[in-house]
Amino acid sequence: MARRDWTEKLRVYLVTDDRPDHGEVAAIVEQALAGGVTCVQLRRKQEDGGPMLKLALRLRELASAHGALFIVNDRLDIALLSGADGVHVGQTDLPASLVKSRFPELVVGVSARSVGEAAQAEHDGADYVGVGSVYPTATKGDAVLTGLDVLAACKRAVRIPIVGIGGITVERAADVLAAGADGVAVVSAIMSAQDPKAAAAAFVGRTFMNT
Amino acid sequence: MARRDWTEKLRVYLVTDDRPDHGEVAAIVEQALAGGVTCVQLRRKQEDGGPMLKLALRLRELASAHGALFIVNDRLDIALLSGADGVHVGQTDLPASLVKSRFPELVVGVSARSVGEAAQAEHDGADYVGVGSVYPTATKGDAVLTGLDVLAACKRAVRIPIVGIGGITVERAADVLAAGADGVAVVSAIMSAQDPKAAAAAFVGRTFMNT
Ligand code: NI
Repeated sequence: MARRDWTEKLRVYLVTDDRPDHGEVAAIVEQALAGGVTCVQLRRKQEDGGPMLKLALRLRELASAHGALFIVNDRLDIALLSGADGVHVGQTDLPASLVKSRFPELVVGVSARSVGEAAQAEHDGADYVGVGSVYPTATKGDAVLTGLDVLAACKRAVRIPIVGIGGITVERAADVLAAGADGVAVVSAIMSAQDPKAAAAAFVGRTFMNT
Repeated sequence: MARRDWTEKLRVYLVTDDRPDHGEVAAIVEQALAGGVTCVQLRRKQEDGGPMLKLALRLRELASAHGALFIVNDRLDIALLSGADGVHVGQTDLPASLVKSRFPELVVGVSARSVGEAAQAEHDGADYVGVGSVYPTATKGDAVLTGLDVLAACKRAVRIPIVGIGGITVERAADVLAAGADGVAVVSAIMSAQDPKAAAAAFVGRTFMNT
């Protein structure tokens, strides 16, 4: 995929949560896609490969139907087997450099908590970095808080697109983009919304309004 | 790898444990290889991809230096990135059929607890099945106990090689082979031995003696 094809798709980036019911996850993702999210990342901690692959195949289909990007967190194998557009790795996951060199056709994203990590990710061949937590978050209680300053500094330091993540609400989305992010990544503000479609649409409205 | 090259290498099959110290794991594996184990499977539950890949690369090198097979449990991506000979999957891991069809060059092993699961594995294209637990084991407290009867029935039901696993000691190894296994898989009897090299050599002596 050429970069111009997918950078725009980082704009409203949904990351799934760990709720056990796959049917629920798929239903929320489908509503969020209907609401306009441009990217879906499947993130499942502690799930066996078999069920996770099944869920990945389901989300792959949903994302394709809505023209959205589909990314798998951590499990490169599940990304490959499900036909995902890419894989997202943290600092202790598979190294981006090796993944990118072996599977150059995949979009590779890296989580960064500092300018140094973002610069290293770019050096390693990452296609984008996820910077955060921008705000305090319950999803990752032990996450490093970067604030908007680090995000802005990352934007000055690297040329690859940046997605802000962590505690981002509809109200805060414009600030995150204003600080230099190309997109906002969201977990609970959509996954736990009473109306995930409306929540997604609110993010879409707010983020594209500020272009 | 042609089957005749590797079936013999299933004979004394070491599976790593979860001890946190990678240096210790590598040292034990190296001693076990010096003692004659013919296959090493890296099995790590709940370890991040980055450190697991590093350990895999180290064991890949050790196994190659001793002419042994190197297999990665569950994580197909780590198998691919480390240059492993194969991947071993459980009933809730990635499906053997898909792994084999996408990566036919890999040796694919499947854990089976019954004749039905062993036959399904063969049907799915698995290259071998690991049947067990043959004996009670502390390594997997919740494992189904198959005994030697199920192993013998699997041997009659499938043509692919069978490795017995679960609670196999040097004293029991000959019985497991006599029941139809092509090899014995061992965790604690080597990993926790005072002298892993001697323990491995004892298994080698006992299993090849009974050919
Ligand atoms: Ni393109």
